[in-house]
Amino acid sequence: MADRPKIVVALGGNAISRSDEAGNVGQQFVNSRVTAKSLADLVEQGNQLIITHGNGPQIGNFLLRNEAAADAIYPLPMEVAVAHVQGGMGFMIAQTLGNELRFRGRTDAVTAIVTTILVDHDDPSFHDPTKPIGRTLSEKEAEGYGRDEGWAIKEIQPGKFRRVVASPIPRKIIEIEMIRRGVDAGDILVVCGGGGIPVIQDPKGAMHGTRAVIDKDLASALIATDLDVDAMMILTNVDRVAINFGKPDQKELDRITLSEANGLMAEGQFPPGSMGPKIQGAIDFLEASNKPTARVVIGPLHKAVEAFAGKVGTTITKS
Amino acid sequence: MADRPKIVVALGGNAISRSDEAGNVGQQFVNSRVTAKSLADLVEQGNQLIITHGNGPQIGNFLLRNEAAADAIYPLPMEVAVAHVQGGMGFMIAQTLGNELRFRGRTDAVTAIVTTILVDHDDPSFHDPTKPIGRTLSEKEAEGYGRDEGWAIKEIQPGKFRRVVASPIPRKIIEIEMIRRGVDAGDILVVCGGGGIPVIQDPKGAMHGTRAVIDKDLASALIATDLDVDAMMILTNVDRVAINFGKPDQKELDRITLSEANGLMAEGQFPPGSMGPKIQGAIDFLEASNKPTARVVIGPLHKAVEAFAGKVGTTITKS
Repeated sequence: MADRPKIVVALGGNAISRSDEAGNVGQQFVNSRVTAKSLADLVEQGNQLIITHGNGPQIGNFLLRNEAAADAIYPLPMEVAVAHVQGGMGFMIAQTLGNELRFRGRTDAVTAIVTTILVDHDDPSFHDPTKPIGRTLSEKEAEGYGRDEGWAIKEIQPGKFRRVVASPIPRKIIEIEMIRRGVDAGDILVVCGGGGIPVIQDPKGAMHGTRAVIDKDLASALIATDLDVDAMMILTNVDRVAINFGKPDQKELDRITLSEANGLMAEGQFPPGSMGPKIQGAIDFLEASNKPTARVVIGPLHKAVEAFAGKVGTTITKS
Repeated sequence: MADRPKIVVALGGNAISRSDEAGNVGQQFVNSRVTAKSLADLVEQGNQLIITHGNGPQIGNFLLRNEAAADAIYPLPMEVAVAHVQGGMGFMIAQTLGNELRFRGRTDAVTAIVTTILVDHDDPSFHDPTKPIGRTLSEKEAEGYGRDEGWAIKEIQPGKFRRVVASPIPRKIIEIEMIRRGVDAGDILVVCGGGGIPVIQDPKGAMHGTRAVIDKDLASALIATDLDVDAMMILTNVDRVAINFGKPDQKELDRITLSEANGLMAEGQFPPGSMGPKIQGAIDFLEASNKPTARVVIGPLHKAVEAFAGKVGTTITKS
């Protein structure tokens, strides 16, 4: 069991919530069951999975619920909200994948672990928050929340505003030893949900949650490095990574090397907030890995096996 | 590490939320830090802890938030709400205990695991729900929720109503092997939060969350049995278990045997909803344990070490 190829699989928001749906829990379970089939295919091919996931739509909805009920009941701070959503989504992903594997006659254990990730208290992003969360706000709402709640707010389109929070670089996964033992024993784990719960450490050594959201692709690269896995897959809603995106000379990439990825990143080919962190995560993992065959695949959620075989998606290798 | 005495410690609602407070997150962290001192005392004495906890106030508040925001955003079904609260409370308890241990120069890992517990689909409690959750309702509200949402509702005092849900008997902890490995490696785990997320299994083998709340003392007895621990502690807000409670001949119990506990239970000395499940949990664990020295201590939260030494609290032994 323990020497099957290990893959960190990072699920994008569309693995659970489709943009053309309201995103209620029933729909989330339906989408999660579809995603589970892709993941089960990878398991049946003989791979061991460590699953991470974003929480974009869910944390936005959670904070909206928080806000809509603020007159009736105390709100939850952001990092505590991230922890709650880890529990809810971890339960859903572990259950739907466990069920799919049982349908196929397998008995693999799938377990979700509440994951906390240390960030630097002086990470520059705390002074320049850029990660949008929650719903779009009108100018009036934006002014109100900025004034009354101290939210950082950005105009994302003329007259449309969103709350932005810091997105610090993940430094250390607090629960890594427990996670490593589960992986060594052959378990399938769901970890680093929503990028992990961000904590900072004070001079006395105590950890404290902090108002931020860690990018799930960077968190995935960190755990891929820590666990020295064979590959990382970032499953999303595009067939391939493209350069010159949206221009006449747009080109889809089939296979690139680490140094090519670094070059394209430096050219500014990949925008922050979408493809940027995925490529950065790929670079982080491949630069840290000692395995010459380490690779990263960025590909479509529902063709995971084909993407892992290089038939769709973009494969990034060390050389 | 792995052969320290193992104790399942079940934390009551007052470990995190005091009844004389609004119970917001800041207060929950303050209370959790006080609780962490008690737990750290037990660790420093050389015990390994497996921590379980109730979610009474938190799940009630979570569902209240759900309800207050229902016009703005889809509500979360109860079992998904339990999963969310496991994440949030697990994060808080693991962090505050981890911090307290670091203050004392220790490096123990404290990890929360999302825990799912199988119940029988035909558990009798599904036909006779009795566990009150959420806030008190007026007669008019009670009628409305009963009619529109299909809630089971009970009149708890004349004119005062609460929603009641099934509280089925926990049968199997789905994540037990992962938990066992963590315990064997010496980790301190936070598990079975809120009694665990209740699931039923359909004829095809798939697990599904179900609208119920498992009693945390019964879930604690199950994990204590599975892990074959040395002792179970149920930490609460009373100094000792009493019989003839509230009567002139009320008597506090210092030490009783399993057969005495069974006898008092049969007499109806312990009400359902409060001391009843604690004594039942004690009976379940002691009857299942093969260790002649196995014991259960029911005692005050902030005197855990004294209670474990038999100086306060009620100790129940096999003979």
